[in-house]
Amino acid sequence: MKLGTLENGTRDGMLVVVSRDLRRAVRARPIVSTMQDAIENWAEVEPSLRALYDALNAGTAPDAFDFDPAAAMAPLPRAYQWCDGSAFLNHGRLMEKAFGIAPVPDFETVPLMYQGASDDFLGPRADVPLPSEAHGIDFEGEFAILVDDVPMGCTAEQASGHIKLLLQVNDVSLRAFAPAEMKRGFGFLQAKPSSSFAPVAVTPDELGAAWRDGRVHLPLHVRWNGEWFGHPHGGEMNFSFHQLIAHAALTRRLRAGTVIGSGTVSNADPSAGSACIAERRALETLAHGKPLSGFMRFGDTVHMEALDADGHSVFGAIDQKVVSARS
Amino acid sequence: MKLGTLENGTRDGMLVVVSRDLRRAVRARPIVSTMQDAIENWAEVEPSLRALYDALNAGTAPDAFDFDPAAAMAPLPRAYQWCDGSAFLNHGRLMEKAFGIAPVPDFETVPLMYQGASDDFLGPRADVPLPSEAHGIDFEGEFAILVDDVPMGCTAEQASGHIKLLLQVNDVSLRAFAPAEMKRGFGFLQAKPSSSFAPVAVTPDELGAAWRDGRVHLPLHVRWNGEWFGHPHGGEMNFSFHQLIAHAALTRRLRAGTVIGSGTVSNADPSAGSACIAERRALETLAHGKPLSGFMRFGDTVHMEALDADGHSVFGAIDQKVVSARS
Repeated sequence: MKLGTLENGTRDGMLVVVSRDLRRAVRARPIVSTMQDAIENWAEVEPSLRALYDALNAGTAPDAFDFDPAAAMAPLPRAYQWCDGSAFLNHGRLMEKAFGIAPVPDFETVPLMYQGASDDFLGPRADVPLPSEAHGIDFEGEFAILVDDVPMGCTAEQASGHIKLLLQVNDVSLRAFAPAEMKRGFGFLQAKPSSSFAPVAVTPDELGAAWRDGRVHLPLHVRWNGEWFGHPHGGEMNFSFHQLIAHAALTRRLRAGTVIGSGTVSNADPSAGSACIAERRALETLAHGKPLSGFMRFGDTVHMEALDADGHSVFGAIDQKVVSARS
Repeated sequence: MKLGTLENGTRDGMLVVVSRDLRRAVRARPIVSTMQDAIENWAEVEPSLRALYDALNAGTAPDAFDFDPAAAMAPLPRAYQWCDGSAFLNHGRLMEKAFGIAPVPDFETVPLMYQGASDDFLGPRADVPLPSEAHGIDFEGEFAILVDDVPMGCTAEQASGHIKLLLQVNDVSLRAFAPAEMKRGFGFLQAKPSSSFAPVAVTPDELGAAWRDGRVHLPLHVRWNGEWFGHPHGGEMNFSFHQLIAHAALTRRLRAGTVIGSGTVSNADPSAGSACIAERRALETLAHGKPLSGFMRFGDTVHMEALDADGHSVFGAIDQKVVSARS
């Protein structure tokens, strides 16, 4: 099942069921009006939403209309919690090696995870307003999950059933702030402005065999200003989403609607390219002694899309432009 | 004006107006039903809420009832964003000095601030369930603010008008995780379980002259298991709440309902005591070469209350017990 949220003038938007081919949509109301309401009442609303999804795919849903990703908000336009992992260790290893960053303690055994801002998630085609090109504007292509209520102490083994929906994310990052914020010990804040989300959230079954072991086994195709940038594969994730849930829930319960991210998708094979500029700069530094690529400029675009084995878009595309917040 | 939220079986609770003396309450509906709705529509609802507050204080509000802090949730039971500063530099200086922590870069000029979990704020009398006494269970007495929509790039000078309500917080902390999480660079996650809030949020005018320069000029009285622990004064805050807003909003807008904390209240005069055990242990280490106090045990209680010049409680009291999450 695919679910999206359309702009309707409210902060939470209007929940819609979206067809498998992403072409048609139908309002989820009267079953449920918003994504937050849906995730809080998942057991109750899921069967009816699935029936509506089946009807929509069969062309028999009344009041269906064309789905316009330009009118889509993030599937969950604001969340009560966003915890973002860094579960592709290849990325961290490259950054350490290229830029002489001190090794992170317990890097291989304890997931890195930061608490991010979740009050203002952006839609898939929304411009990304930022204050300055001097801040080292970067994208980060990621997968993420949306969970229902997770009890404190939930183990990785128990976590699977709490994953109700999968998401695809652009975790916009400002690299000029990151090293200083990491050194100060309090984590990212100015380095991590609002994240953007692909048009639809999908239930895990929608991926078939590409959802297994708590990982999204799909390539994430990334283009920067229309040019190929990478197609790293989600299957190389070192810590599974199950492990990320257990990490986040060790000392607290996670309330329904919590979003947990994978961190930038990254593969050991350099021919897969990257899902963020910082990593390309690390590869360039290792090959040439210095980074060759700059960061994003105002007007630059990024396109991110996960494709299934048949080449079909799973979450729809993130396709957005970075703009000056002052203009 | 004082506002609280009472349990009603929902995640967002029921907004109530609470009398100045904290004894009586009246339902805020039909003006507005929840704190989140109120902060999103502040200009529209504030005059009617104030009229109701005046009537309540005059004893003329129909349907008023006794206010029971034991039935209170956090004034905002869940938020889309919680950014917690560390704006009392005396605290950081003591921790550095006592425990040989490396100095934080730009400590005096750039506020320390971490992004915290806001999906599950606890009420003032709620038990605090935690998995293990071995995690170094600590309290942190703080003040906080609740803002309306703050634009990206908001300066400290512009920030004042965005502060709609003041709060008092127990930022529960697990000290066993903090040093490792700080070293890993991604900030606090397991070290910071759910925070608890005093019964009511108050408008800044409620403090009279004790609200000035973006600081709460009140002593925060802290008792651990009924014994005096400290009464540090909020006026010693080195960075004002205005500066904390500007710091948080540098690279992103803050959506209505964002909560920003001061960090643990801390005074240079050691006779004021402390608002967290870690700081008392730092003082003990400096005086005796080692910490003498342990951290909290299951069954321990903490009481936190800010008193005005006449000795009246401003936000009501946080008075809660730490318990095993497994029992």
